[in-house]
Amino acid sequence: EVTNTSQRNKLLWQKEAKLHNSVYMYTVFASVNQHVFTTLENDPLFARQPGEDIPIEKKRELTFLRVKQLFRYNFLTEEEAMANPWKSIILTDCLGMYDLGMSAKYFLSIGMFGRTVASSGSSQHNKYVENTNDMTFFGCFALTELSHGSNSRAMRTTATYDPSTQEFVIHSPDFEAAKFWVGNLGKTATHAIVYAQLYTPDKVCHGLHSFVVPVRDPKTLLSLPGVLVGDMGKKLGQNGLENGFALFHNVRIPRENLLNRTGDVTPEGRYITPFKDSNKRFGASLGALSGGRVSITRIAVVNLKLAMTVAIRFSATRRQFGPTGKGEIPVLEYQLQQWRLIPYLAAIYALDHFAKSIFMNFVEFQIGQMMGDKSDRQAEMGREIHAIGCASKPLGSWTAQRGIQECREACGGHGYLAMNRLGDLRDDNDPNCTYEGDNNVLLQQTSNYLLSWFHGSRIESPLHTVDFLDDYQKILESRFTPTTMEQCMDSAVPVAAYKWLVCFLLGESQKRLEQQRALGKGDFEAHNNSQVYYCRSLAIAYIEHDCLQKFHDLTTDQDTPAGLRPVLSKLCALYGLWSLSNHMVTLYQGNYLSGRKPAELVQMAILTLCSQVQKHLSSSTKALLGPHFRPSQTKVTFIISSDFRLGPTMACISISI
Amino acid sequence: EVTNTSQRNKLLWQKEAKLHNSVYMYTVFASVNQHVFTTLENDPLFARQPGEDIPIEKKRELTFLRVKQLFRYNFLTEEEAMANPWKSIILTDCLGMYDLGMSAKYFLSIGMFGRTVASSGSSQHNKYVENTNDMTFFGCFALTELSHGSNSRAMRTTATYDPSTQEFVIHSPDFEAAKFWVGNLGKTATHAIVYAQLYTPDKVCHGLHSFVVPVRDPKTLLSLPGVLVGDMGKKLGQNGLENGFALFHNVRIPRENLLNRTGDVTPEGRYITPFKDSNKRFGASLGALSGGRVSITRIAVVNLKLAMTVAIRFSATRRQFGPTGKGEIPVLEYQLQQWRLIPYLAAIYALDHFAKSIFMNFVEFQIGQMMGDKSDRQAEMGREIHAIGCASKPLGSWTAQRGIQECREACGGHGYLAMNRLGDLRDDNDPNCTYEGDNNVLLQQTSNYLLSWFHGSRIESPLHTVDFLDDYQKILESRFTPTTMEQCMDSAVPVAAYKWLVCFLLGESQKRLEQQRALGKGDFEAHNNSQVYYCRSLAIAYIEHDCLQKFHDLTTDQDTPAGLRPVLSKLCALYGLWSLSNHMVTLYQGNYLSGRKPAELVQMAILTLCSQVQKHLSSSTKALLGPHFRPSQTKVTFIISSDFRLGPTMACISISI
Repeated sequence: EVTNTSQRNKLLWQKEAKLHNSVYMYTVFASVNQHVFTTLENDPLFARQPGEDIPIEKKRELTFLRVKQLFRYNFLTEEEAMANPWKSIILTDCLGMYDLGMSAKYFLSIGMFGRTVASSGSSQHNKYVENTNDMTFFGCFALTELSHGSNSRAMRTTATYDPSTQEFVIHSPDFEAAKFWVGNLGKTATHAIVYAQLYTPDKVCHGLHSFVVPVRDPKTLLSLPGVLVGDMGKKLGQNGLENGFALFHNVRIPRENLLNRTGDVTPEGRYITPFKDSNKRFGASLGALSGGRVSITRIAVVNLKLAMTVAIRFSATRRQFGPTGKGEIPVLEYQLQQWRLIPYLAAIYALDHFAKSIFMNFVEFQIGQMMGDKSDRQAEMGREIHAIGCASKPLGSWTAQRGIQECREACGGHGYLAMNRLGDLRDDNDPNCTYEGDNNVLLQQTSNYLLSWFHGSRIESPLHTVDFLDDYQKILESRFTPTTMEQCMDSAVPVAAYKWLVCFLLGESQKRLEQQRALGKGDFEAHNNSQVYYCRSLAIAYIEHDCLQKFHDLTTDQDTPAGLRPVLSKLCALYGLWSLSNHMVTLYQGNYLSGRKPAELVQMAILTLCSQVQKHLSSSTKALLGPHFRPSQTKVTFIISSDFRLGPTMACISISI
Repeated sequence: EVTNTSQRNKLLWQKEAKLHNSVYMYTVFASVNQHVFTTLENDPLFARQPGEDIPIEKKRELTFLRVKQLFRYNFLTEEEAMANPWKSIILTDCLGMYDLGMSAKYFLSIGMFGRTVASSGSSQHNKYVENTNDMTFFGCFALTELSHGSNSRAMRTTATYDPSTQEFVIHSPDFEAAKFWVGNLGKTATHAIVYAQLYTPDKVCHGLHSFVVPVRDPKTLLSLPGVLVGDMGKKLGQNGLENGFALFHNVRIPRENLLNRTGDVTPEGRYITPFKDSNKRFGASLGALSGGRVSITRIAVVNLKLAMTVAIRFSATRRQFGPTGKGEIPVLEYQLQQWRLIPYLAAIYALDHFAKSIFMNFVEFQIGQMMGDKSDRQAEMGREIHAIGCASKPLGSWTAQRGIQECREACGGHGYLAMNRLGDLRDDNDPNCTYEGDNNVLLQQTSNYLLSWFHGSRIESPLHTVDFLDDYQKILESRFTPTTMEQCMDSAVPVAAYKWLVCFLLGESQKRLEQQRALGKGDFEAHNNSQVYYCRSLAIAYIEHDCLQKFHDLTTDQDTPAGLRPVLSKLCALYGLWSLSNHMVTLYQGNYLSGRKPAELVQMAILTLCSQVQKHLSSSTKALLGPHFRPSQTKVTFIISSDFRLGPTMACISISI
C-alpha cells in the first residue's frame, strides 16, 4: 500500500496527464478499436444481417456463444486494464457498438461479478475471480428485489450467521423479496453476488452486505438445492441477455463467502469492521457504487453516436422538395432538419468528453480506494463522484433516448425499418434510464448533495464541480449581457448563465424546503414536495453546467490543437445554448433575462451555429452511401461499425463523423 | 343528391345533436365495444400471451387469419357505418386496442382501398368494392415511393393512355420510383390503388391520379406479369402487417381502372374534369385526404390510454420509501410521479374529446362531398379541416409518443418487461409520427393556412377554429392577469394565454417571412428559414388552442352533467396549463408575462391540480391488481382490454380509468 500522499498524487498526476493527452488517447483508441473490430468482422460467429428476425431463444444462444468467444479472445488482460484503465472503456465502447446485450452479458460476469468480488472481498475470494476469468464460473450481481429497486435499504433477503456450522443462511422471506432483474441469472449464471441483510446470532441486523452464493451447478447448469431460479422473459431490448429472478430457501454458504472488505463476522459470530468513522465508510461506499453510473453515461453516448451516424447520412443523401424550377435539395440543408439533429451532434461531442473526464475522476477515486486511502479528501471525493454519477447517468441516458427518437423520426419511414437499427438502439438504450437507479430518484441524491452546501460549511470539492459556489452572491447578481447574436455564439455565454442558474435554483430549492418545513411538513414530505421545478431542475442544471464547463475548458486549452479549436468552440456554444434553452423560463423568472431580445439572440445563435456546423460535416461523411440512400442495401450496419474506428470518439482529431 | 342547403343543414344538425349527446354516444359505445370484445375474447384465434415471442412470419400468418375472421364477423355493415359514422370509430378503437397492426391490415383493405375506390371512382368500380367486402380481393394503397413521401407532387410513376387498346400503361421509370411502404403489399394484396402521373397521348401530364391495378392473382397470390412486388421486412412495430414495394414494367390496365371522380380520359384520349374552379377542386381534395390524419389523431390517443392504464395502476400499487418509522407509500402519491403522469391523463381526456369533435367536422365535410356540394363554404371547410388534420396528427402522435415513454420509465424495470406491453404500444404508435405525412412537414401546411390570414381578406372559418383572429389587435394587447394560484386553476386562463400566443406567433412569423424576403430570399427559402421558433410553433399553438378551447367549452356546456363539470374543469385547466408551460419563453418574450410571479403561479397550479386529480382516481382503479403489482401475472392485458369497455372514452361518465 502506498500511504505517502505526495507519492500517490504524483502517480495520479502522471496518469492523468498521459490520458488527457489526446494524441496518446487516440493512439490507444485506434489500436484497440482496430484490433477488436477486425477480429469480430473476421469471425463468422459475429456475422449478422441488419433487420434479421431471430427468435429470442436463438438470440440468447448466439449471444452466449459470442460471449464465450470473447473470453477466448481475451482482448484485454487484467494487467493491461489496470495499467491503462482507458483501454477497458474503449473495449466497452466497441463491444457495445456491436451489441449492448452481449456486452452487458460479458461485463456482468467478468466485471460486475469478478471485479466486485476482487474489490469487495479479500484474498480468500481469489478463486472466484480466477474461475470467472476463464469462464469456469459465470457470474451475476443480485441486488434488486421484486418489490424494491431504487430503495436499496429496503431489501429483505437475509443472511443469518450460524456459528455451529460457521455458515451463513441465505433466505428470501417471500416472493416479493425475490432477487429480480438479475442479468445472466435467467439461464446461465453459476454464481451470484447476493445482497442481504446480515444478522449475527444475537439477532442484530448489521445492514446490507454482499455474499457469493452458488446458484447453479457449473457442469449441468441445474439449479442447486434451495435455490429457485427463473427467467423473466422477453424485454423491450437487450434480449441476448437473459434476466432472471431467484428465491433462496435457507441456502447455506460458508462464512468465507461474505465479501468482507468493509465488514466481517468472526467464526464465533461477532461483527467487525475496519472503518471507525461511519461517515467515511459511507462516502467510500457511495463512490464505489458510481462506477456503473459513470459507465452508463458513456454507453448511452455510444448509442446516440450510432443513431446520429445513420440520421446524418440519411439526411445528407435524401433529397426532398426544392426551390421552384430547381432540383430537390438534401433534407440536411433545411433549417428544421438541422435544428432537429445538429444540437444532438454537439451533445455527442460534449458528452463524450464529459464521460471521459468523469471516468478519469472515478479512476482517481478507485486508485485511492485500492491504496487504502482513508483521508477526508478521499471520502469527500466519494461523495462528489456519487453526486456526479447520479446526475450524469440521467443526462446521458435521456439525451440519448431523445436523440435516438429524433433520429428515428428524422429518417421518416426509412427510420422505421428494423434494418436501419434505430429501433434496436432505442430499445437497447432505454434501460439506461432505469437500471443502477431510476433517473428521477437518482437526481435527488445530487440535489441533496448540493443542498448540503447550506448546512454549515462549504462543500469540499476535490473534483472542483462546485468550486464556483464560492462566488454564490456575486453570481446571483450577474445578468445576461450579450446584445448581438455574434456575442451570443461564445460558449462563455451559456457557461455564465448556467452558473447563475445553479445558484438561483440552489437558493430557490432551499427556500422551498424551508417553506414546507414552516408548514409543519416532516423532512420526507418536505423533500418530496420540493422536487418538481426545484431540486430536480437544480440537479439537472448542475450536471449540464459541469459538462459544458469541461467542454468549454477543452476548447480554450492550449493543449488542444489550434486548428481544431474553432470548430470545437462552435459545437460547445451550440450545446450550451441548446441545453440552456430548456431553462429559459427560470432565467426570465429570476430576471437574469428580461425583455424580448435575449431569448431571440439565443434562438438565432442556435440556428446559425446549426447551419455552420452542418457546413463543417465532411463531404466524405455525406457521400458515403452514394448519391441516394438505398434502404435495401444491407451494409448500413457494417459501414457504421467499421466507420466508428475513425468515428466521433475522435472528436479531437476530426469533425467528420 | 340533396341540393337544398337548408334541408342538408337540418340533416347535419340532427346528426350532430344526436352525436354530441354524450349519453347517446356512450350507449352506442358500450354496445359496440361490448359486442366486439366479447366476440374476440371467446374466439381462440384471438387468444395471446403477454410478452410472447412470435417469429415475424408466424405473426403475419396469425394476423392474416384474424383479419379473415374480422371479415366473417362483419362487426359493422356499410349501411350501419353510413347511418352512424361514430360506430366505425368505436370499431377502430376496439380493434386498435387489441392490435394496431391487425387493425391497420383490415382497414387498409376495406377502408383505404375499398372506401377510397367508392369515393374516388364511379359506379363502374362497384365490383372492386364488393369483392373487397367479401375478401375475394385484398386491397392496398400505393402513394409513397422510395425516394418521395411527403412531397407527393414529386411522384414519378407514370400512367400513359394508349387509345389504340383503350388502356393505361403503368410504369416505374426506375428503382427510386418504386412504390414503397405499401401496407398489405408485401405478401397479401391482390389489388392496389396506384397513384401515378397521368399522361394523355399528346404527352401532356395532368398530374397525380389514382388507378386500380391488379398486382397478384387472387387465387394463387403469385404476382402478375410486369409487376415486381417484394416484402420490406421487419419494422420497429406493427409487424403483423407486412409492407411492400412494387415496380411496374409497362403494366396495362383498362381505361376504366382510372378512379375518375375528379378527372377522366375519354376513349380517344382527351382529358376531362367536372371541376371548373381549380381552387375548389384543390380544397375538396385537401379535405378528402384529411380522413386518415383525423383517424390517426384518435388512434394515438388510444395507445396512450392503454399505456396510462398500466402506469397509473402500477404507480398506485407500487410502494417505495416512506416517512421515517412509517410504512412505504404508493409511488403515485409522490409529487414527482404525479407530475410525470397526471398531465398525460388530462391530455387523454382533452384529446379524446378533440379527436371526437374533429371527426364530426370531417363527417360534416364528407357528407357535403357525397351530396355534391360545390359551395364556397364546402371548399373552405376542406381547407380548414386540412389545416386541422395536419396539426392534430402531430399533436396526438407526439403526445402519445412522449406519454408512452414516460409511462415506460415511470414503471421502472417492470415497464421494460415485454409482457407489460408498453414497448409494443410505443413501437406501434411510433409510425403515427411519420405516415400520412411527416409531422414536421405537415405542420407547415397548417402554418401556411394561418399565414394566409395576412394575404388579403379574413380566412373563412366554417369550423370556427380561427374566428378569434377577428380580435387580433385586442388580443395582442391582453396580458396575464391572475395574481393567485387559485385564479390560475381555471381553464379560462390558459385559453386566454393561447389566444394571445397564436396571435403573437402569427404576427412574428409574418415578420420573419418579410425579413427573409427583404434579404432577397425566394419564397421557398424564406419559408424554410422561418420554421423553427416561428411557423412551427405557430401551428402547434393553434392546434393546442383549438383542442383546449373545445375541452373548455365542454366543461361549461349546460348539456354536460353538472356533477361531472368540476372534475372535467380540473382536467381541462391542468391540460391547458401544462401544455402552455412549453411556451412560457414566448409568453415572457412577448411581455404577456413579466416578473417572477406568473410562471410560479402556473407551476404551483399544475402541481396542485395533479394532486387533486390523483385523489379523484377511483379506488377501484387503484386496487384492481390487488395490494401488489405482480409482473408474473399474465392477465394485465386482458384486464386492460375488458376494462376499456368502461374506460376513458367514457370521460363524460366517470373519471375512473
